[in-house]
Amino acid sequence: MEIFYAYESDGRTCRLDSDESAHLVRVLRHRVGDEVHIIDGEGTMYRCRLTDDSPKAAEAEVLEAFPDWGAHPYRLTIGCCPTKNNERFETFVEKAVEIGVDCIAPLIGERSERKVYKTERAERIALSAAKQSLKAKLPKISEPLSVREFVREPREGLKLIAYCFEGDVPRRSIKAALAQYCQAGERPEGLAGNAGPGSVGLPQITVLIGPEGDFSPEEVAEAVANGYIPVHLGPSRLRTETAAITAAEAVYFCFL
Amino acid sequence: MEIFYAYESDGRTCRLDSDESAHLVRVLRHRVGDEVHIIDGEGTMYRCRLTDDSPKAAEAEVLEAFPDWGAHPYRLTIGCCPTKNNERFETFVEKAVEIGVDCIAPLIGERSERKVYKTERAERIALSAAKQSLKAKLPKISEPLSVREFVREPREGLKLIAYCFEGDVPRRSIKAALAQYCQAGERPEGLAGNAGPGSVGLPQITVLIGPEGDFSPEEVAEAVANGYIPVHLGPSRLRTETAAITAAEAVYFCFL
Repeated sequence: MEIFYAYESDGRTCRLDSDESAHLVRVLRHRVGDEVHIIDGEGTMYRCRLTDDSPKAAEAEVLEAFPDWGAHPYRLTIGCCPTKNNERFETFVEKAVEIGVDCIAPLIGERSERKVYKTERAERIALSAAKQSLKAKLPKISEPLSVREFVREPREGLKLIAYCFEGDVPRRSIKAALAQYCQAGERPEGLAGNAGPGSVGLPQITVLIGPEGDFSPEEVAEAVANGYIPVHLGPSRLRTETAAITAAEAVYFCFL
Repeated sequence: MEIFYAYESDGRTCRLDSDESAHLVRVLRHRVGDEVHIIDGEGTMYRCRLTDDSPKAAEAEVLEAFPDWGAHPYRLTIGCCPTKNNERFETFVEKAVEIGVDCIAPLIGERSERKVYKTERAERIALSAAKQSLKAKLPKISEPLSVREFVREPREGLKLIAYCFEGDVPRRSIKAALAQYCQAGERPEGLAGNAGPGSVGLPQITVLIGPEGDFSPEEVAEAVANGYIPVHLGPSRLRTETAAITAAEAVYFCFL
């Protein structure tokens, strides 16, 4: 099943950009009248009929809409410090999208080796992974923020910070923290504000993953002061991107 | 913490091959008398003193031994069909070693695009990942076998086959299958035979992951006839290597 992405759709017509149009028309040789499947990146997949096979600006008429297509039953934000080797962070982005994630927030920690991060490549990888894994909603890749800026932002739901070193801050396992949140009736019944369509009432979870040298104690303290619960990801010593994938898997399995 | 690998160790002396010796002596400039940490690949880490700083064949005297160093509380075999793109399979190998795996079995399925697989690169990646993630035991990377040959091999413990398509074979989630095995007293109390030192009595789990086109119905039927339980990995449609990573994570979280 081949999926295309519409940069614009009003529920009746889907418009494809030049990359998607070229792939649809030049590579896969679709012509006017063909049935194609198009996602809007917001959560809806449209079964469409191609009405314009321009390889630069293809258009299709909507035949049927499938809202919440490939959706997962939670809203997950992973804030993760980009790795020194960019490909490793991109592996995390791809795997997290396949597993299920709503927002990826690149964070710059005090110990980050990478202090600058551009989101364009991650956005392309997220789009490709969403199409490959049959999900109609693209995760938001936010602009980089420092860890301290990020933890000060108001945020609903369960907030976790994964921290490698047992210090002054006692930690529990991410599995235990998630299980308590999911089972103890701590789930919000209805969320207002920043919860998007189709996600009203879904539990919101944020997990922070530090850079190769981990968060600084000051960053952890500031996160805790802002309501983040310190967690560990188990006994294995994981690379940054593996830790971030493992956090996505922990949430996925909690709701399985 | 820098870890080296000894191709030979008798509990008193560790011998390094030319790659490890060159890294120890030429790159990190260790000299006779330096304290170094060396794994034997079987599960023991040795604190050593360097007695020969030859960059081709370094040797070290054991000061202290740490058996089961970085060990996990289960024995996991993942049989996975190598992906068309070799790097994707290697991503799985690296991540699985970080999370915890004992044997990686490359399988050739009837629908595999890759019919030939050489294990050398995976072995190098596994060694690097074990050192990076502070584990003294290297996973065994077995020689490729066809899916049918593999499922006919006698094998202890819980045997699972992940299968994408709901057909004649009913499936349960891998989480439910693992939870039942771990909680219902199905764990063996003492295992004989192929259980290595340090792993006697540990639960043994095998999970099979198919190629891009999944297992054939005949392969699934033969696996089931040989005691494999069909499972799914949840609602997300995962790439082969992501499915294999997810299987490793499911087992990791079951025992967390």
